Amino acid sequence: MTLPINLPEVVAEVSAAFDRYEDALVNNKVDVLDELFWDSPYTLRYGATENLYGYVEIQAFRAARPAQGLARQILRTVITTYGREFATANIEFRREGSTRTGRQSQTWVRTAQGWRVVAAHVSLLG
Amino acid sequence: MTLPINLPEVVAEVSAAFDRYEDALVNNKVDVLDELFWDSPYTLRYGATENLYGYVEIQAFRAARPAQGLARQILRTVITTYGREFATANIEFRREGSTRTGRQSQTWVRTAQGWRVVAAHVSLLG
Repeated sequence: MTLPINLPEVVAEVSAAFDRYEDALVNNKVDVLDELFWDSPYTLRYGATENLYGYVEIQAFRAARPAQGLARQILRTVITTYGREFATANIEFRREGSTRTGRQSQTWVRTAQGWRVVAAHVSLLG
Repeated sequence: MTLPINLPEVVAEVSAAFDRYEDALVNNKVDVLDELFWDSPYTLRYGATENLYGYVEIQAFRAARPAQGLARQILRTVITTYGREFATANIEFRREGSTRTGRQSQTWVRTAQGWRVVAAHVSLLG
């Protein structure tokens, strides 16, 4: 790898963005979720039960989503940064009341507006 | 986004690496699969039925995997590049004999050795 991995100041930035996203997710702060996804037709989110292509589809999904039952416990977190502009954030989690392990993968890129998720994939372990 | 998106020569490079990975996957060319994942403890792969942390775990999984039933049809592909060093590749696919849609997400980074997958997530649509 030619890019420096896990520069502490970059990890701190991405961790803060990740934490902000997690808080928004479990508290259904839709405006923050919308803010933290890259506003682009290239943005993509594979969810547990849907495949969403482009910011508009993702935004519509957020708006229509039930606001209940979003609480979850994070079991394991791996945030890795590559240089100063790219990062991946991966977690294992468990929803309250569920026995299944979920996985959430995000690819983050630094934009002029701040760190944004450009691609995400959420699923339950089979 | 301050980084140039989808520079044609970068898309061509990543597409070639992606195609090489896909060919290796369906033909169980384990050495090529191993080559195309970043050789690092930070590399991570969430599979349909397993969570693998670090290159060593991923390599052990490849070595133990049955070599049959790997054929699959790609239904949709989105490769996006950010600048000259970072890319995401996302596909929907269907395994031969299955009616379920699979999703494969990869984050690619350019290394001194070439493009490598630094994080991957594979799952079936719920």
